Amino acid sequence: MNSYPLLKTINSPSDLRQLDRKQLPQVAEELRAFLVESVSKTGGHLSSNLGTVELTIALHYAFNTPEDRIVWDVGHQTYGHKILTGRREAMASLRQYKGISGFPRRSESEYDTFGTAHSSTSISAALGMAVAAQRKGEDRHGIAVIGDGAMSAGMAFEALNNGGVLDANLLVVLNDNEMSISPPVGALTKILARMLSGRTYAAARRAGERVLGPSLTRKVEEHVKGLVTPSTLFEEFGFNYIGPIDGHDLDALIPTLQNIRNLKGPQFLHVITRKGQGYKLAEADPVLYHGVGKFDRTAGIQTGKSSGKLTFTQVFSDWLCDMAKQDERLMAVTPAMREGSGLVRFEQEFPQRYFDVGIAEQHALTFAAGLACEGMKPVVAIYSTFLQRAYDQLIHDIALQNLPVLLAIDRGGLVGADGATHHGAFDLSFLLCVPNLIVMTPSDENECRQMLTTGYQHNGPSAVRYPRGSGNGIAPAAEMQALPIGKGAISRQGSKVALLAFGTLLHEAIKVGEEIGATVANMRFAKPIDAALIRELAASHELLVSLEENAVISGAGSEVARVLEEAGLKTSLLRMGLPDHFIDHGDQAQLLHDAGLDAPAILARIRLHAAIAKS
Amino acid sequence: MNSYPLLKTINSPSDLRQLDRKQLPQVAEELRAFLVESVSKTGGHLSSNLGTVELTIALHYAFNTPEDRIVWDVGHQTYGHKILTGRREAMASLRQYKGISGFPRRSESEYDTFGTAHSSTSISAALGMAVAAQRKGEDRHGIAVIGDGAMSAGMAFEALNNGGVLDANLLVVLNDNEMSISPPVGALTKILARMLSGRTYAAARRAGERVLGPSLTRKVEEHVKGLVTPSTLFEEFGFNYIGPIDGHDLDALIPTLQNIRNLKGPQFLHVITRKGQGYKLAEADPVLYHGVGKFDRTAGIQTGKSSGKLTFTQVFSDWLCDMAKQDERLMAVTPAMREGSGLVRFEQEFPQRYFDVGIAEQHALTFAAGLACEGMKPVVAIYSTFLQRAYDQLIHDIALQNLPVLLAIDRGGLVGADGATHHGAFDLSFLLCVPNLIVMTPSDENECRQMLTTGYQHNGPSAVRYPRGSGNGIAPAAEMQALPIGKGAISRQGSKVALLAFGTLLHEAIKVGEEIGATVANMRFAKPIDAALIRELAASHELLVSLEENAVISGAGSEVARVLEEAGLKTSLLRMGLPDHFIDHGDQAQLLHDAGLDAPAILARIRLHAAIAKS
Repeated sequence: MNSYPLLKTINSPSDLRQLDRKQLPQVAEELRAFLVESVSKTGGHLSSNLGTVELTIALHYAFNTPEDRIVWDVGHQTYGHKILTGRREAMASLRQYKGISGFPRRSESEYDTFGTAHSSTSISAALGMAVAAQRKGEDRHGIAVIGDGAMSAGMAFEALNNGGVLDANLLVVLNDNEMSISPPVGALTKILARMLSGRTYAAARRAGERVLGPSLTRKVEEHVKGLVTPSTLFEEFGFNYIGPIDGHDLDALIPTLQNIRNLKGPQFLHVITRKGQGYKLAEADPVLYHGVGKFDRTAGIQTGKSSGKLTFTQVFSDWLCDMAKQDERLMAVTPAMREGSGLVRFEQEFPQRYFDVGIAEQHALTFAAGLACEGMKPVVAIYSTFLQRAYDQLIHDIALQNLPVLLAIDRGGLVGADGATHHGAFDLSFLLCVPNLIVMTPSDENECRQMLTTGYQHNGPSAVRYPRGSGNGIAPAAEMQALPIGKGAISRQGSKVALLAFGTLLHEAIKVGEEIGATVANMRFAKPIDAALIRELAASHELLVSLEENAVISGAGSEVARVLEEAGLKTSLLRMGLPDHFIDHGDQAQLLHDAGLDAPAILARIRLHAAIAKS
Repeated sequence: MNSYPLLKTINSPSDLRQLDRKQLPQVAEELRAFLVESVSKTGGHLSSNLGTVELTIALHYAFNTPEDRIVWDVGHQTYGHKILTGRREAMASLRQYKGISGFPRRSESEYDTFGTAHSSTSISAALGMAVAAQRKGEDRHGIAVIGDGAMSAGMAFEALNNGGVLDANLLVVLNDNEMSISPPVGALTKILARMLSGRTYAAARRAGERVLGPSLTRKVEEHVKGLVTPSTLFEEFGFNYIGPIDGHDLDALIPTLQNIRNLKGPQFLHVITRKGQGYKLAEADPVLYHGVGKFDRTAGIQTGKSSGKLTFTQVFSDWLCDMAKQDERLMAVTPAMREGSGLVRFEQEFPQRYFDVGIAEQHALTFAAGLACEGMKPVVAIYSTFLQRAYDQLIHDIALQNLPVLLAIDRGGLVGADGATHHGAFDLSFLLCVPNLIVMTPSDENECRQMLTTGYQHNGPSAVRYPRGSGNGIAPAAEMQALPIGKGAISRQGSKVALLAFGTLLHEAIKVGEEIGATVANMRFAKPIDAALIRELAASHELLVSLEENAVISGAGSEVARVLEEAGLKTSLLRMGLPDHFIDHGDQAQLLHDAGLDAPAILARIRLHAAIAKS
């Protein structure tokens, strides 16, 4: 391991502020090297963190953190921030069970002023902080650092619209790297590009090429403000627009930020950075190096070697292309998650039927509703946790009008290393109460494919909710055949105890069933639920156990209970699901165990119940 | 009643299109008179409909509806559209039980291409329609008619950002009346004002003064495009910007729209209208005449005469001012619902602590979270149905960080005449699964005040969910005292049957209790639920009945069931709540009866259950 002589001496931003400005490039160099080494050992986000090394240093150097509040949008660019704020050694535990989070967290450090992970919340939060400071008469800034991708979300616009008319000390730093996780889309991208083109400072765009080396040492203040045209989109919103400046040039960043610190009212600093900056492999393929597992720093990520096991995302990806070949009405919509949602191949094969609408979950669903009105068959690929952003659109625009939109909900249940902000812990709870909606929970890969077919062929709204990662290895059949709606199936016939599994917990249920001779049912549909099957099992067993990787509150188990109530059946029910607290990051299997949802934990609860019942 | 000679002959837009252009001013005059007469008899939205009389006529005259698709944002400006599309006589049943809806509905007419009511969905939907037409090779337009208030929501921005880069025949008509329900706020308002100022055509702003009368008969095409500066916000987004034009001048509107019909790609027409246009009383006070009950057309709305009964909104309003006097940390946030949420007095008394953030529910909650981070005590006043727009922000920004934000949720349960889009039917279902959140359901006015106090004093997130309209007349006490968290109370001691009521259904429960000698509990807290009370009641009664004005699926009854399961109690449970379908508009009492939630319906279900149990 390198020694990082200067970085080692920095245990807080006040240590950093002790340094001479001339030492900062060395800090940046060491920080970048440390990041690559650290992430290569733990996995995590890489490209975004390499792109914000200088900006992180400059913000902490120029502002008086933590008195000035930095809110990092999305937060996957905060590793450098963590390292400079006392968590250098803790980086070895990044995103691991009981280790530090991959995102900022208020509970982790006073420098983490606001927890983020979902996109585009930072301006709202920083504005709230700045307004509070103003009302209290405290002289501090609320600083939002937001990427150009995140700026495309409606929520960011709402915050700009509000922030531009309030007189608070809000600074929005637009970290413009021309990338969200997927390449950016939408009109805003073009607007930003126009801001950069036709200006003297456009050269700064290719910051990686260091066109602004020492030979161009210039009066920073001059080119910061003077060379740009006065009216921009952001000035229209009432912000004092400054930039664009080279986000890898500390000699530009620091005096600019120091000047801004003395300005009052809403400020907007446009900074140009490059994802992956300083690490050639990541510069060349920032998408590949966006979120990484462990890798060799010299050889880089080895692609092409497959684990052999199909992920549910891949099952969806294949199904989507297969169905699109059969039915030209199929249109695929994604809110800026081409890679994560498995749409890369679809975009290549069906570019005219592929719609990346930007980080815009609300628009994604209502746009799909509009397509459906005209006889198209839209499929929206969305993560469970991000569907929370489009809940009203699902109810008001899709379900109320009973429109045939299929939601392919990825990352349902525990997601692992991304943690509390990303678990798909609530979808069954918030979906089951929505009238007209069909909700399916596949237990394996083939069932996932057939459920997608079922939802697609249904003439109304439907959702298939599948987990992150791979299944148990049941290869999807080539054919695509709809399942009977609202019908579960017995997976294992036993006696006394019947386990009713929703989704992939079926396999834990089968282990338990084999251990104690219990019946196991694959419920398949959380809505409409198979009431006949539940009544039958209740009549022939002493104990029912409902199992779901979703909040135990208001989930599928609640509907099992309601079937029993309505039938007047007194069979005991154990409702098992995720506990009523937010679940941290860690290995999926470990988290499942902690939640009481792996086979040993399920077994222990059943035995405890039996012991109590006997006593 | 007037005879409306010309209007009578128009039973569809094709009848309208048979008329000579010179006859259209008379159509407008008759339509306006018909609107005032009709709404004075049924109640409904008035100002918005008077403002769009000419625009409605012009759109149907210039475009080939229903082949061209008009999507009306919010939809409270569609009465004229309904009258011209075959529903003139049906207007007598507007917003009444089994009558036509106050909003567009796909099931009501082929001219209602998309159901709306919540703001800012129209561009997304119309874009979806336009893209579908393009992919199918059909020559039709997707037209969104959206107000300047609705344009401030993030969702509209997301749609513009997407629409500007797609090459579909999308027309966005900005109906700029400088009003949402409350006066508009935010930077966008200023931008629009700047677009209007400094232009020859700025005179059109005061459209009501008819500055562009016949003496100014001019080449319309010239002033439509020629007199405006070329670059505007909307051109930045890739739209062809046209306007602003006088939205009450048919001689400007019709040729402009006819020209636009021949243009390809995204078009943006900026139209200036005046809410209440042509009815002096509404012109003078468009807020008062926004949503009205029955009134005398000549005398106008008689204000000041109070029904004597306090609404829950007023209870909140008074509590807010009283608490603000005690605690200067209190900050009130509203997403553009100053009047409806009861914030008029607060704004007057505490302008520095009042934040109308625009139609921006997402931003509202996260802005409040930012305030809370700095020690403020934000109270967000929001309708239940609009909280669906900020669900992710509640989970990700407030609950996960356990921040002390109080949600004052108005219009929980059935709202009446606004119907399916506005009922607060799902909030308990989507709130109970959220960790850290306290959810309260007041049964009367005083309890509402004390619950607001409870939530406010609690050091974490909380919600008080109260219905539209007035309570049973329990005057709020002057003092403000927190209730013990998670504790219900027995309202009536009886035997055999125990009714567990969440919220104002307590009073129906008491009627039932008196009829059959049942115990009645006022549960008060949906979360944390009073498990001890439930166990006690289960042990001492034969039947429990849970009652909530929320979806029966995943609601508070589900938690009652879970308490019984966990305690191994076999007492029968009847879970009563709103049925699993969308509920139309009508009188609140009638709808409650239909849902099986008034005393006679509850009683009937209990008796049926008893009869089945015996047989």
